[in-house]
Parts: sequence; structure tokens; C-alpha cells
Amino acid sequence: MPIFVTNMATSDVKGMVGDPVVLGVLTVSDRASVGEYEDEGGPAIVGFFEEAIASEWSHHYQVVPDEVDSISSALIDMVDNLGCDVIVTTGGTGPAKRDVTPEATELVCERILPGFGEQMRSISLQFVPTAILSRQVGGTRGKSLIFNLPGRPKAIRETIDEIWKSVPYCLDLLGGPYIDMNDDVCNAFRPKNARRR
Amino acid sequence: MPIFVTNMATSDVKGMVGDPVVLGVLTVSDRASVGEYEDEGGPAIVGFFEEAIASEWSHHYQVVPDEVDSISSALIDMVDNLGCDVIVTTGGTGPAKRDVTPEATELVCERILPGFGEQMRSISLQFVPTAILSRQVGGTRGKSLIFNLPGRPKAIRETIDEIWKSVPYCLDLLGGPYIDMNDDVCNAFRPKNARRR
Amino acid sequence: MPIFVTNMATSDVKGMVGDPVVLGVLTVSDRASVGEYEDEGGPAIVGFFEEAIASEWSHHYQVVPDEVDSISSALIDMVDNLGCDVIVTTGGTGPAKRDVTPEATELVCERILPGFGEQMRSISLQFVPTAILSRQVGGTRGKSLIFNLPGRPKAIRETIDEIWKSVPYCLDLLGGPYIDMNDDVCNAFRPKNARRR
Repeated sequence: MPIFVTNMATSDVKGMVGDPVVLGVLTVSDRASVGEYEDEGGPAIVGFFEEAIASEWSHHYQVVPDEVDSISSALIDMVDNLGCDVIVTTGGTGPAKRDVTPEATELVCERILPGFGEQMRSISLQFVPTAILSRQVGGTRGKSLIFNLPGRPKAIRETIDEIWKSVPYCLDLLGGPYIDMNDDVCNAFRPKNARRR
Repeated sequence: MPIFVTNMATSDVKGMVGDPVVLGVLTVSDRASVGEYEDEGGPAIVGFFEEAIASEWSHHYQVVPDEVDSISSALIDMVDNLGCDVIVTTGGTGPAKRDVTPEATELVCERILPGFGEQMRSISLQFVPTAILSRQVGGTRGKSLIFNLPGRPKAIRETIDEIWKSVPYCLDLLGGPYIDMNDDVCNAFRPKNARRR
Repeated sequence: MPIFVTNMATSDVKGMVGDPVVLGVLTVSDRASVGEYEDEGGPAIVGFFEEAIASEWSHHYQVVPDEVDSISSALIDMVDNLGCDVIVTTGGTGPAKRDVTPEATELVCERILPGFGEQMRSISLQFVPTAILSRQVGGTRGKSLIFNLPGRPKAIRETIDEIWKSVPYCLDLLGGPYIDMNDDVCNAFRPKNARRR
């Protein structure tokens, strides 16, 4: 399964407040990985990036089956070789036997940030009581942040629009690039002394 | 300590939407296990089943002392030998030295579903600030779901009535029986394509 | 780095409802530990004790750098040698590489009480979305309770004033001293049969 790269050049790079950022999108789905089903989760995540990120950004996108090895290899490749600053996965976080995305994510992360899973479940609980079945996690590998999103586009946007408010400052603390956001779409928070504008 | 079995035959099995389901109720209490104290937690859980479950159901009930071995053996027996699809425990989840129900539950579960503990504490926090002292967990062993409830009947009903809304769909995802509920008591959620009615 | 001891004698010990309690305050900060920066977190915590605790209390206070060894040694010393019943840390709970307070806390605790981290993040989320980046934990070592607070005085008071409502009953369950509180500052909860007044 090849890795697709898209470079989204922003018109006025010179005048930008933020640094360029490299993003990873990993869709985990047996059916999508063999082409039986068209991935909707990945494009929903990219759609959020297009609307919300003001910094120059590029992204790597891959679709893998629900296998711990495939998922963890893809995550390691995206961080260690492709230099992704943030990787977002979609799919494979439920209680079913084939759902192993959280296991693979924990395997490659050096640290877990328990607040990511907690808040994502808490947000989704406002919409469906079955949100507690999700085992989504977030964590760091080196200077990179990795976290799991739900599979359905609607649930993805309910979650990422809220969760991402903490991502730019997380990258600052990890020593990564300064991600500037479009405040009207995603009003990310930084303490005053950490703001460039 | 014998395991009591009660079969609750439903009048019109033929016309039922749901599948028959086998439930386990495990009361963890030093005092109740030696008869010094009449178990109130177990009956409160069975009371919920009577009101809320529309599927045909039967249940296994056992009372064990606050010992990791007793609890884990009972849980394993209920899943592996008695075929319980869902097991609910009551008692032994606090911070006191004798409280070891979460340890025993984690021992027998192959997977933890962190949302169960999070939501149960969050619900109980609406009633008492000491809810954060509870270490309740939920998880899966094979196709079975196990989770810990508080000890007091009032706290049990505050929790199970809400948490159970996610249990039927969880069983669907685990490959277990379709549990049909009485919607007016417990309005469980399933995505549309997973509903029989 | 010496450990400072302050004994806060209360005027009327004879008539007190609560037992004397020994508290530990551990500030974790590279800069404060070498005197580059004046610790504000520790005093904020002591300020809470002064306002909120009705029992006779004394406290041990130490400042250590962001090193797992320094933090865990200080925590062990405070519990095992100095007899602290509750130890509160401040600083070092973020996602940055030097933040290791949660790791050190987990190392010395025999049990984690996940509700502490969950509720602290949930409280802080009401103020800043980046609250999910905190990895704060709480747990027990023997009969002692240890938990991590944020670094900034404002965030400390937003958290401890709420969290502490569960601390006195936690100590009761652990077999520690009965901590009596000033209800108007911190209305701690105990079940009726556990109350002295």
C-alpha cells in the first residue's frame, strides 16, 4: 500500500505566523485497505486540516488493515522516516476482536496522554451512549503527537474540531513546529507568553 | 460458596426480538460471603435486569470474599464454564487495602474498556465528590463483558441504568447475543443498521 | 536540598474534632530547585491548607529538579520516614521531555486512583482546552495518598479546592487520621456513619 503525499502550499508563505507542519493521516480498515470500501475517514480529517490550519502544511496518507503490525509499522514510518509532527488515525478503536488501533498506538508511543482518550469519549458521549466503548488513545513518540479518532466522518469532526484546540501548544511543548490555526474554525489555546500573535 | 441459578422464562419467547442472554452477578464482600451481612448489591442488580431486559435471560449469582483469587476464579468460571455474556460485580472497588475487585477484574480481562470506569465515576460525581476514589473498571474476556459497580444499591442503580445503554451494542460487537431492552427503562443505543426493530 | 518543616499549632487542640495530620508539599521544577525562580506552587498549596484544614496539621516542604530519581526519593522519604499522610506535588506533569512527575509518582504508588487524574483534567478543561495535555495522577503508598497538581498557583487552586473534598474520606478508608475541614472553604464529603460531627 503506497503512501500518498500531498503538498498544500499556502499562497503567502513569507508572511506566515506559523511554521510549516507535516501531518499524517492513517486510516485503519480491513475493507478500505483492499479497496472494498472507499475510505471516508481519511478525507474527513484532511477536510478539517484544509479548513482549520493556517500554517503551511503537507500530509502523508496511508490506509492499512486492522493488524497491529501494519498499524505500528505505518506509525513508526510516518514519525521516524517521514517526519510527521502529528499523526491522526481513524478506525479500529472499538471493542471488537479486529479492533487493534489503540494497541498499536500504545506500542509505538513512549508516553500516553490519558486526557486525549478521556475527552474524546466525553465529547462523543454527548451524541451516543456507546461512546464509552471506544478505546481511543493519544500519546507521543519523540517530538510527535499521535492520536486515534473514531471511524465515521460525523464522529471525526465532532471530535477533532474540539481536541485540536490543544494540539498546537502540545507541539510547542514537544519542541515541534509552531502551528498557526484559523481561529474561527479552531480556536487553539496557548498561554500568552507562548503566542506569536 | 455455591452458585445459584435462576431461569427467568419470558412468556412469549417465540415472538421475541432479542436473543436469550446469560448474565452473571458477583457480589464481593467479606461480610456477605460469611453471612454476617445480607447482600443488597446483588439483588439491586437483579432488580435492574427484571425491569430493563426484554430478551429472555437467566443469571448466575455468587458471593465471594474480598480476595483476588476468589474474585478472579469466580469471574473465570462464570465466563468460561457458565457462559455468562455479561458479568456485573458489586463491591470492593474503593481505595481500602481489602478492596481488590478492580485488580481481579483486570487480571481476567484481555482488554480494558477505559470508558466504563470514566463514565461510572463521572456519573457518581454528580452525587458525591468521593466518587473519584472508586477504581471501577470494565473490560472483555473473549466475547464476554465484565464491569464493576459500586456497593450500595442506590449507587448501583444511579450507575447501571445509564451505563447499560452501551452494553447491548457492545455485545453485538463482541459477537454475543442480541439483547433487547425495555426502552422506557433503559433506552440502549444501536446504530440504525444494527437494529432488529 | 533540605526539607523544611513547619508546625502549625492550632489554638484549641483539646476541643478538636479531627486528628493531627502530616502533609507533604513537593515542588518539582528544575529552575526553582537551583534558586533561579521563586517557587509559587508550593506556597499556593500551603495557602489552601491554611484556609481549609480545621484539624491540627504540620507540613514538610521540598523542592526538587525534574528528575525521576529526585522526585521518587523525595516522595518515598516523605511517606516512609516523615510519615506524611497526604503529599501533593506541583509541576512537571505536561508532555514535555523534562516532565516526569507522573512517572515518579506511579513508581512509588502501590495503587493508582484513576479518578484523581480524570477529575483534575475535567476541572481544568473548564478553563483551558490544553488541560488534556496534563498527565496528573493520584495514588496510594501504604496508608498515604499522593497526587499531582498543576504548576501555576491559579490552576492549583482551581483544582485542589475541588479535589480535596474527597481526601478526608480517602484517608479514613486508608486507615489514616480523621481530617476535619473548614466546611465553608472545602466542604469535604463523608457518608453519615463516618462523620464525627
